[in-house]
Amino acid sequence: MSESAVTSKVAIKNDLILKVARGEKVDRPPVWLMRQAGRILPQYRALRAKLSGFKELVETPALAAEVTIQPVDELGVDAAIIFSDILVIPEAMGLTYEMVEKKGPFFPKTIQEKADVDRLQSGEQAAAELSYVYEALKITKKELDGRVPLIGFAGAPWTILSYMLEGQGSKTFSKARKLLYTEPVLAHTLLQKITDTTIAYLKQKIAAGADMIQLFDSWAGILPAQQYSTFALPYIRQICEAIQEVPLTVFAKDAWFALEELGQLDCNTIGLDWHIDPQLARKIVGPKKALQGNLDPCLLYAPMAEIEKESRSMLQSFGDRHIVNLGHGVYPDTPLDGVKCFVNTVQSFTYPAALS
Amino acid sequence: MSESAVTSKVAIKNDLILKVARGEKVDRPPVWLMRQAGRILPQYRALRAKLSGFKELVETPALAAEVTIQPVDELGVDAAIIFSDILVIPEAMGLTYEMVEKKGPFFPKTIQEKADVDRLQSGEQAAAELSYVYEALKITKKELDGRVPLIGFAGAPWTILSYMLEGQGSKTFSKARKLLYTEPVLAHTLLQKITDTTIAYLKQKIAAGADMIQLFDSWAGILPAQQYSTFALPYIRQICEAIQEVPLTVFAKDAWFALEELGQLDCNTIGLDWHIDPQLARKIVGPKKALQGNLDPCLLYAPMAEIEKESRSMLQSFGDRHIVNLGHGVYPDTPLDGVKCFVNTVQSFTYPAALS
Repeated sequence: MSESAVTSKVAIKNDLILKVARGEKVDRPPVWLMRQAGRILPQYRALRAKLSGFKELVETPALAAEVTIQPVDELGVDAAIIFSDILVIPEAMGLTYEMVEKKGPFFPKTIQEKADVDRLQSGEQAAAELSYVYEALKITKKELDGRVPLIGFAGAPWTILSYMLEGQGSKTFSKARKLLYTEPVLAHTLLQKITDTTIAYLKQKIAAGADMIQLFDSWAGILPAQQYSTFALPYIRQICEAIQEVPLTVFAKDAWFALEELGQLDCNTIGLDWHIDPQLARKIVGPKKALQGNLDPCLLYAPMAEIEKESRSMLQSFGDRHIVNLGHGVYPDTPLDGVKCFVNTVQSFTYPAALS
Repeated sequence: MSESAVTSKVAIKNDLILKVARGEKVDRPPVWLMRQAGRILPQYRALRAKLSGFKELVETPALAAEVTIQPVDELGVDAAIIFSDILVIPEAMGLTYEMVEKKGPFFPKTIQEKADVDRLQSGEQAAAELSYVYEALKITKKELDGRVPLIGFAGAPWTILSYMLEGQGSKTFSKARKLLYTEPVLAHTLLQKITDTTIAYLKQKIAAGADMIQLFDSWAGILPAQQYSTFALPYIRQICEAIQEVPLTVFAKDAWFALEELGQLDCNTIGLDWHIDPQLARKIVGPKKALQGNLDPCLLYAPMAEIEKESRSMLQSFGDRHIVNLGHGVYPDTPLDGVKCFVNTVQSFTYPAALS
């Protein structure tokens, strides 16, 4: 705690993203990319080639810090996001994951029955397992030396539950969704354990230097609206209420049907995927929150002139109180030039009001 | 042609679904399930166990007819849908698919460049490859003997293009989506070839006895709204305009953002996934079309009392001009009792107006 207190005393030079999250005026919108620390960067690929696998990178604080900072150096983005994975939470609770090359995550053991849920540790006890994450944040924070804010993150409870039940990605997530209909009480017990762990984990991340937090509800879009209100939103709400130290972003992918309720959460920013028109989103969310997003990640495959044109058009459509990002994580085979064109287009944009 | 002319002279006894599609009054809504001919039925599993694989079933007309009729016998649904696959179209055009057990479709050869598109056959020439499908329809039609209408189907052009580019399912469909940004002209050429083939194919299906057609745009929901308007809707529109012989349903999964444009198509019915509130859908689509859907397929895992309650609640929410279905294909491990409970609940429902 004392070390983080020292760390956080370094003034942040480029605090655009924090200002926008808090509702302060800025001359241009800040920009970063989900998955910016990753395969799009040659530096990342070079480092990754020397390692045994993805988890070695996640679990070695000095290396995680190194790849966290790479996009700040290479792309000049306005925020760093700690290199990690949302699946460290199920692992800390007792379900180890593997990251299978070209296939994604795999859990050898999944939740099958109540006894499996009872066996999971949770809250501060589980969060204490993740010291390598906190250490990575501390190193990153020190090496960033206040250049840009550092974002910490976690998966939203419904998304984490999905992985714990399915054991891997799925087209239908029918095992996880089945539980909500057949054993709603058990589902709530598990969601509460995940929530308690996530809150303890995020508080430790903040203590270790995170200047901002993002919750990823990656599988929000698979649920019917009513189930999203019952099994997903109440736990996101608990996390929003518990995390008051730094600005918080909630990104519930494809949950267009829940946007009004998301807009009422006690958080600063709502992340948007690439399906929703920014002006419609603003109308639904209201004026009190920042909006983050939402360029189609595939646009970055396009010719530079089109990337510039579409990025500018998006900026105009959002207006102010906008944190620029894609509508999803950048795809690993995206050309670096396309990414740079996107970042540069945003950073050379100026709000009309700023000119007057 | 003469044989189908004979076939179609058998009067259909239960024509509820055709009436609703055409906007005629009925006493209760008709019900069927996407993927009703499949693993949920013990009869299907018994037959399938004797065969070399999925494609043997699709390509053997007498067997395809047998499994098409199984759910009419076992569940008493108000329509049969021909047992087939949307991927017969790419195959007829020149790209063979395999169906890999527990993994789904796989194309050994995919579209990589313009020459690959040029090499594809299309239109009537391609549709002529699919005589086994037309034969299956003729046998089914004969064996159904007018009990219920027979639905024919095809994938919408964007979804078919996705498979031709990706070669398999994908979380992001980024190869297919990349083409739209990097080679829009080539994408349009390919979409037109698929459309021409699909129209010729559907006309042959109708000639062979299909009483109704459904277009499945399974990957509609991955596109940004603007791209859906540019690369998906114009081809669906061509198909709607070309198919005037029988009622047509368009099911664009997860394309909430395109619902207004879908509602303006020259078709009879709009299929809905389980995310959209029926009353909101009716408001957007307007009064001129039937709506089909949209129970969460996972609800059929729930206890019977809950299936009944939620099914009734959905029926009330839709009101009339409703073809009852799930919001997606029924999942293979769904308990047969749950499916029967759903079908029975709908069939014992009566519109309030019918009582007066």
